[in-house]
Amino acid sequence: MKLYLDCIPCFQRQALFATRDLEEKTRAEILRKVMNLLYNRKWNISPDELSQDIYELIRHETGIEDLYHEIKKASNQEALEFYPHLKERLEIIRQGEDRLFAAVKIAIAGNIIDFGPQIEIDLDKTISEVLGKEPGINHFARFYEMAFKADDLLYFADNAGEVVFDKILIEELIALRKQPFRKISFVVKGVPVINDAMLQDAQEVGIDRLPNLVFLKLGDGDKETGPRRRDDRVRQWIKDHDMIISKGQGNFEGLSDNRGVCFLLIAKCPIIAEELGVKKLDTIIKYDKR
Amino acid sequence: MKLYLDCIPCFQRQALFATRDLEEKTRAEILRKVMNLLYNRKWNISPDELSQDIYELIRHETGIEDLYHEIKKASNQEALEFYPHLKERLEIIRQGEDRLFAAVKIAIAGNIIDFGPQIEIDLDKTISEVLGKEPGINHFARFYEMAFKADDLLYFADNAGEVVFDKILIEELIALRKQPFRKISFVVKGVPVINDAMLQDAQEVGIDRLPNLVFLKLGDGDKETGPRRRDDRVRQWIKDHDMIISKGQGNFEGLSDNRGVCFLLIAKCPIIAEELGVKKLDTIIKYDKR
Repeated sequence: MKLYLDCIPCFQRQALFATRDLEEKTRAEILRKVMNLLYNRKWNISPDELSQDIYELIRHETGIEDLYHEIKKASNQEALEFYPHLKERLEIIRQGEDRLFAAVKIAIAGNIIDFGPQIEIDLDKTISEVLGKEPGINHFARFYEMAFKADDLLYFADNAGEVVFDKILIEELIALRKQPFRKISFVVKGVPVINDAMLQDAQEVGIDRLPNLVFLKLGDGDKETGPRRRDDRVRQWIKDHDMIISKGQGNFEGLSDNRGVCFLLIAKCPIIAEELGVKKLDTIIKYDKR
Repeated sequence: MKLYLDCIPCFQRQALFATRDLEEKTRAEILRKVMNLLYNRKWNISPDELSQDIYELIRHETGIEDLYHEIKKASNQEALEFYPHLKERLEIIRQGEDRLFAAVKIAIAGNIIDFGPQIEIDLDKTISEVLGKEPGINHFARFYEMAFKADDLLYFADNAGEVVFDKILIEELIALRKQPFRKISFVVKGVPVINDAMLQDAQEVGIDRLPNLVFLKLGDGDKETGPRRRDDRVRQWIKDHDMIISKGQGNFEGLSDNRGVCFLLIAKCPIIAEELGVKKLDTIIKYDKR
């Protein structure tokens, strides 16, 4: 997805939010550096790439490796408290299409846990709303078909906390298929960007206990932190799996030109909603087959 | 009022909104120029001063004198349609304190017509809400007392459309006093800034037909367009009148360090709400006697 002009002030707002606990003078200096970075860059790249550079700058300037560490821990805890209740809710639905649809909606509802856009985060309310409403884009039929056929699952996670909801969806996929995937590659961030899920978050909520699961890292292009979304290595991951799920806005921004990816998200930002041709806060199951 | 860091991205968002009908390439160039202006300025001034410079830059870059001309005309028309209904609503209340309080609330409700902050503008809904709720800051008792004593009224108007609601308040003040003011100085903008009311707007809604009324202009510091809010000439206006009403956020930003001014506004922006210690969208009657 291309960058919209509205993303430019939004990045600055995010930088101010990320540094909200620091001194005013430091925040002003960081804001000026973020403005300078934005001013001097070409604006023909994807928002997720620019976002990554901005959070890198903030990390560098503050010397704080992960500004959202506490928020992420709290999100994981809060989401874990929903886990038994959501499992019960699914268990009363007969195994099959309806139940998987509910699990997909639950996974989408978890996408509300996002400190990037300026939105109110109310998990309980969002779960009820998302379960009750028709998605703005609904390619679930394709998703359901793929759920039986696929051997390997590539899952681009989005945020901390949200990974609990991802776990539920993967468990439902396995239960429906009556057999595990040959391989599940669960993609987390190798560097901290907003409240995006990292390895520790996935482990905290037990993603590592899913069968045949390996972790992959998306990062700043380095070997240790993983490649960027537009890297050839990521395109290779996509080729190497036959079912690909991408959660959230950041992954959509970076992966939207790949076919064969099922995008599950809430269109929280007005620009993403416009790009998708839906209303703000619509839920999305977008799956263009390759 | 001092500038908050959050105002910096907000100005850029406003610049994008103001230029929304222009070509993407032009908008990007203007955005870069706005960023450059903001980057190179000191951030220890009042937001309204910086705002004025930004709209001056946009006027200069686009060559369009008034980007909000059509919006302002439409706002005046829409607000005029409410006029008879609002007058009826007041006429059922007995002349006195309650009726003036209702008129003040109506004038505040009109402040919702603002294309600066990112808010939904629903006049009908806002009127009902504002009339029904207790202001977040309520110095109405002081306002009521002053209404009888004062000889001269200085009225800093805010937006087009809103001036209809200002007219109602001034008419009620005159009716309550049972005599006109010796002088009413009605302050409009001498240069276009967002949808701020200019002379033409005040005339379109009949402000010029109020008794003993003269117009004053706030502008870019030039003789023709009027002084800026922090200019000594404006301080002199304040000294020369014994009742001063200031509508809206922009005037509050520029005049808040003057005592003896009654600020009537809706706290539409989160920063102004924080500055005033109220909730966003609270209504304000703030009157610190001199």
